[in-house]
Amino acid sequence: MVIVMKKGCTREDLARVTSAVEDLGLRAHVLPGVDRTAIGVTGNPGPLDPDAFERLPGVARAIPVSQPFKLASREMNPNDTVVRVGKRAIGDGGLFVIAGPCAVENADQIMETALAMKSAGADALRGGAFKPRSSPYSFQGLGKEGLILLAKAREATGLPIVTEAVDQATLGLVAEFADVVQIGARNMQNYELLKRAGKLAKPVLLKRGMSATLEDFLLAAEYVLAEGNPHVILCERGIRTFSHHNRYTLDLSVVPTAREVCHLPIFVDPSHATGRREAVPAMARAEFHPSPDEALSDGRQALRPQQGAELFAQLRAIAAIVARKAEAVR
Amino acid sequence: MVIVMKKGCTREDLARVTSAVEDLGLRAHVLPGVDRTAIGVTGNPGPLDPDAFERLPGVARAIPVSQPFKLASREMNPNDTVVRVGKRAIGDGGLFVIAGPCAVENADQIMETALAMKSAGADALRGGAFKPRSSPYSFQGLGKEGLILLAKAREATGLPIVTEAVDQATLGLVAEFADVVQIGARNMQNYELLKRAGKLAKPVLLKRGMSATLEDFLLAAEYVLAEGNPHVILCERGIRTFSHHNRYTLDLSVVPTAREVCHLPIFVDPSHATGRREAVPAMARAEFHPSPDEALSDGRQALRPQQGAELFAQLRAIAAIVARKAEAVR
Amino acid sequence: MVIVMKKGCTREDLARVTSAVEDLGLRAHVLPGVDRTAIGVTGNPGPLDPDAFERLPGVARAIPVSQPFKLASREMNPNDTVVRVGKRAIGDGGLFVIAGPCAVENADQIMETALAMKSAGADALRGGAFKPRSSPYSFQGLGKEGLILLAKAREATGLPIVTEAVDQATLGLVAEFADVVQIGARNMQNYELLKRAGKLAKPVLLKRGMSATLEDFLLAAEYVLAEGNPHVILCERGIRTFSHHNRYTLDLSVVPTAREVCHLPIFVDPSHATGRREAVPAMARAEFHPSPDEALSDGRQALRPQQGAELFAQLRAIAAIVARKAEAVR
Amino acid sequence: MVIVMKKGCTREDLARVTSAVEDLGLRAHVLPGVDRTAIGVTGNPGPLDPDAFERLPGVARAIPVSQPFKLASREMNPNDTVVRVGKRAIGDGGLFVIAGPCAVENADQIMETALAMKSAGADALRGGAFKPRSSPYSFQGLGKEGLILLAKAREATGLPIVTEAVDQATLGLVAEFADVVQIGARNMQNYELLKRAGKLAKPVLLKRGMSATLEDFLLAAEYVLAEGNPHVILCERGIRTFSHHNRYTLDLSVVPTAREVCHLPIFVDPSHATGRREAVPAMARAEFHPSPDEALSDGRQALRPQQGAELFAQLRAIAAIVARKAEAVR
Repeated sequence: MVIVMKKGCTREDLARVTSAVEDLGLRAHVLPGVDRTAIGVTGNPGPLDPDAFERLPGVARAIPVSQPFKLASREMNPNDTVVRVGKRAIGDGGLFVIAGPCAVENADQIMETALAMKSAGADALRGGAFKPRSSPYSFQGLGKEGLILLAKAREATGLPIVTEAVDQATLGLVAEFADVVQIGARNMQNYELLKRAGKLAKPVLLKRGMSATLEDFLLAAEYVLAEGNPHVILCERGIRTFSHHNRYTLDLSVVPTAREVCHLPIFVDPSHATGRREAVPAMARAEFHPSPDEALSDGRQALRPQQGAELFAQLRAIAAIVARKAEAVR
Repeated sequence: MVIVMKKGCTREDLARVTSAVEDLGLRAHVLPGVDRTAIGVTGNPGPLDPDAFERLPGVARAIPVSQPFKLASREMNPNDTVVRVGKRAIGDGGLFVIAGPCAVENADQIMETALAMKSAGADALRGGAFKPRSSPYSFQGLGKEGLILLAKAREATGLPIVTEAVDQATLGLVAEFADVVQIGARNMQNYELLKRAGKLAKPVLLKRGMSATLEDFLLAAEYVLAEGNPHVILCERGIRTFSHHNRYTLDLSVVPTAREVCHLPIFVDPSHATGRREAVPAMARAEFHPSPDEALSDGRQALRPQQGAELFAQLRAIAAIVARKAEAVR
Repeated sequence: MVIVMKKGCTREDLARVTSAVEDLGLRAHVLPGVDRTAIGVTGNPGPLDPDAFERLPGVARAIPVSQPFKLASREMNPNDTVVRVGKRAIGDGGLFVIAGPCAVENADQIMETALAMKSAGADALRGGAFKPRSSPYSFQGLGKEGLILLAKAREATGLPIVTEAVDQATLGLVAEFADVVQIGARNMQNYELLKRAGKLAKPVLLKRGMSATLEDFLLAAEYVLAEGNPHVILCERGIRTFSHHNRYTLDLSVVPTAREVCHLPIFVDPSHATGRREAVPAMARAEFHPSPDEALSDGRQALRPQQGAELFAQLRAIAAIVARKAEAVR
Repeated sequence: MVIVMKKGCTREDLARVTSAVEDLGLRAHVLPGVDRTAIGVTGNPGPLDPDAFERLPGVARAIPVSQPFKLASREMNPNDTVVRVGKRAIGDGGLFVIAGPCAVENADQIMETALAMKSAGADALRGGAFKPRSSPYSFQGLGKEGLILLAKAREATGLPIVTEAVDQATLGLVAEFADVVQIGARNMQNYELLKRAGKLAKPVLLKRGMSATLEDFLLAAEYVLAEGNPHVILCERGIRTFSHHNRYTLDLSVVPTAREVCHLPIFVDPSHATGRREAVPAMARAEFHPSPDEALSDGRQALRPQQGAELFAQLRAIAAIVARKAEAVR
């Protein structure tokens, strides 16, 4: 349930509602908005009676949330969530490009890539210091050393850093260095890690599990939100299907659907899904239209810097067209 | 195997090669090109010896085809196939929009839609007269009457007509009326129907089966090509996956991959895959970028005419950007 | 809707109900039963009023059918359908094993296999004379010659014959020779073929399409039933999934679920799904337990005759255990 | 690579080989066998030269392992791994039934179920104290209290306990109480948890992730094995497919295939896959045949005790038939 407060409600009104919620053994999440404050209620096993809250002073309306995910739902928050990363914003309607190598390999590699991505027009640098790998015998990342190299690349370019945390033990360390903490597809249902990420003050980029339904995906986001971290960014990265011409099937249609039922921003990662350099530009152009504001691509591994620059410029040109007409077509 | 002829080869040279192929119990398919003529060879159970053909007068080279699909492969034809529909071309790099209702329902409905699609800027009208339906109790289409109504709509608007054939018995009738004969997803492996479509002089729009791999899809096209009809247009329309937020998962990444290994043009149909009016514009914008020249959408059922006009204009503006930069980024 | 007649109802009662149904523009299907006769009603776009029928003489009850498939549903027929094949029955609780090669290749091959299958204890012989193949360049079957060879094998062994029809043009020919006409997975949604099969007096073995949901599958069966042929046998043969250790994923759990909502017998074909000789016995033992009465396996191609004999004996022993305890455990 | 030692090899021979492996920067895993000792080598990025090891005294042969998983492969260990649980063994060819509720709810519930399962003939009790739940608002388990209740049920019945660990923080606690530590499907690619489980002295039951290929699954097992814990038991529990008549599609054919390439025992869990009480007995009968020795079912939630007793008895009878004939049919 969301309890929407009246415009001029007082602190006492808010406190009274919060207490009323907690007296029922439930949790109250204060959701400050531009025009009005709302209070999200979670923890109720079944539907609540709106009357019990609408009677309280300062309350405009109490609205039941029909989705299994609550804080993530559009019902709870009809406005798009905007996540600030450095001086930039994700989810405000502008294009935001994250680029970089899959893994940080050494000082030269990450610095060169960062400079190339910067001049190509990327908005953030990504690179893995901790890597979840299918085989225990594959390179598992440079760990803390990788994080230090990322920080140096940030210093040199001004690009904020997106990097993955793979367990609770190193999550704090990753959060110290990262501007955005990534939770990878393989950990999307590692609920203990999600709960811990919900206690961070940093934005969390949550990648869709390779067999997660949209509901599973948004419930995973809900784990982070429910612990108090509202800065969650979603990312579609391809799902497992019978169709094996690419490693994964990029499920682009999840983007408009997620945006209907959920207020969180959503990225698309075309490089892991296709797994082939040739297909990345085509899918990147495709990808960001449903969600005109974001794109995440893989730098060195997939595209040469010059290719990146041209692709990003093309994306911005298309974004301008889509934004201009967006109201008309919607 | 493809046998590429020298530039100034004579009719006799061609006839000699054709005979040599047929003497081996194989089939020879003459593939005329702008610069050179080639002869496709099919029917061989294993690899052929190139020498046997390269010795013949007028032969430049004999190239084995490694893919299971032969005539459909890029090895057989490195140039993009362009299919002419009325005065227009599909696959020449321009945008081509097919729009219209799922089924022809009555005279007013199809005429109104056709006029609206025409003024919105569509390039062809589609509508089903014969409908393959999951349930025997659902409306199965108007049949011949539907074809007559489509012909009247073509007369009034000048738009060529795309309509589906569902069996061998009525394929001839459909081909009499249609400018492009559609083979639907449910019949993609109805090989007897494909063989019959391969004897038509009309272009065939072949929709991907809902669980067809790329290889299955191109082998289905091969059935049509192998019978002598080179005018095959592919169409991605969504596949069956666990992901149930939409009816089907539109597998956009099949487009760049198909174009790497196959020379046939490929459309994308966003309306059947999403099954929801809201998601169509987003997926349509996404869809045609991988393949900058085509888009197929569902008219009345999904989008109102004004929405269509705005969407199609947006698609053309994006197509211009993608085309302009395509060489650079590729 | 199913209209259940009273025990002693007269011919006139039946005729009156049939007329009442047809007067509404609907179809009446007389379903004779051991204890009572029922009339299935199809063609109604929405729910019907039971009262209109319950008022008629001889009518016990009129029961709405909630499933999209009507004649195939348990609501329409609570008893298991038993299909007679020669002197044997499919669906009566006994084990029924269909075995044989994928394709009829020549006289010796099919005769030898038939004799081996007979002595191994198979109940029917299968073998393809018309083969739907992914590639137009693969062997498409011996056609009529194959049917003649099958007939000779039947003569020599007494085993009834199961063989596939791939199009309307040759369906009649196949039905002349076959004891059971198979519709393959690739044609499960070839609705025109299904309708034609619905006019046969022969049993139809309908294989599940590789991406068919249970509802799709039963609606395909409904196409046959709706045309008047009640002798439909279902067959699970594996579905397309991401899981690629075998060609297809045998979806055994469809068997108990199908039997809950549908009265038709259901076979399982372990050989095509696994695609590997080694896995067939394991899956065959697994397969038939959900449905203790049937199993379909691939003979020569997969198992040597001696292996077949031991497997079939093992299946019968397990069937005895399952049957003995079936009431207790259900 | 596996280095197989000669029958009468000395401790010094073994130590010399181990040193030679470690000198190359690789890891040596001593694998004691009934007849011979072997040493598994892991950590090599590419193929190793067998000669370098075959020259050493006491070495019979050095065999390269072609699979990406090494310690889990049949090449490394041609014998079936047998895991001891209390006085019983898993993987020795006998039937082993694990049964119990999804979650431990309270003292009475778990004690009653344990007694019922014991008298029905189960071999181990399972029940979740820590539960990974899709929604943060669902019951997450009783935690340590649940473990204590399980221990009491073990005391009363003698049944060993199988219970899940969901994170590194509580893994040690779970291992203190459990006889077998379960890693659930959602954590199958939580590699940090797997590594930690590899340091336990307790058997680990690893459930297949819902979109894990067989290779992913065996590589996850490899994470545990590579850390030194050889007591890994696999468990198939259903995969995500388009087929939605059940929650998951039980992929039974993974069992014979896994056993071909891997020496670890494998269970099947029919209750979570079907999600419906009615389908459990059918799938349980099906499930255990490919792997005649094990079955895992859900007790109270799914089956009433009397049903359980009858099902388990039926399973044992079938197991006897399958075991008796297993050599003949293979």
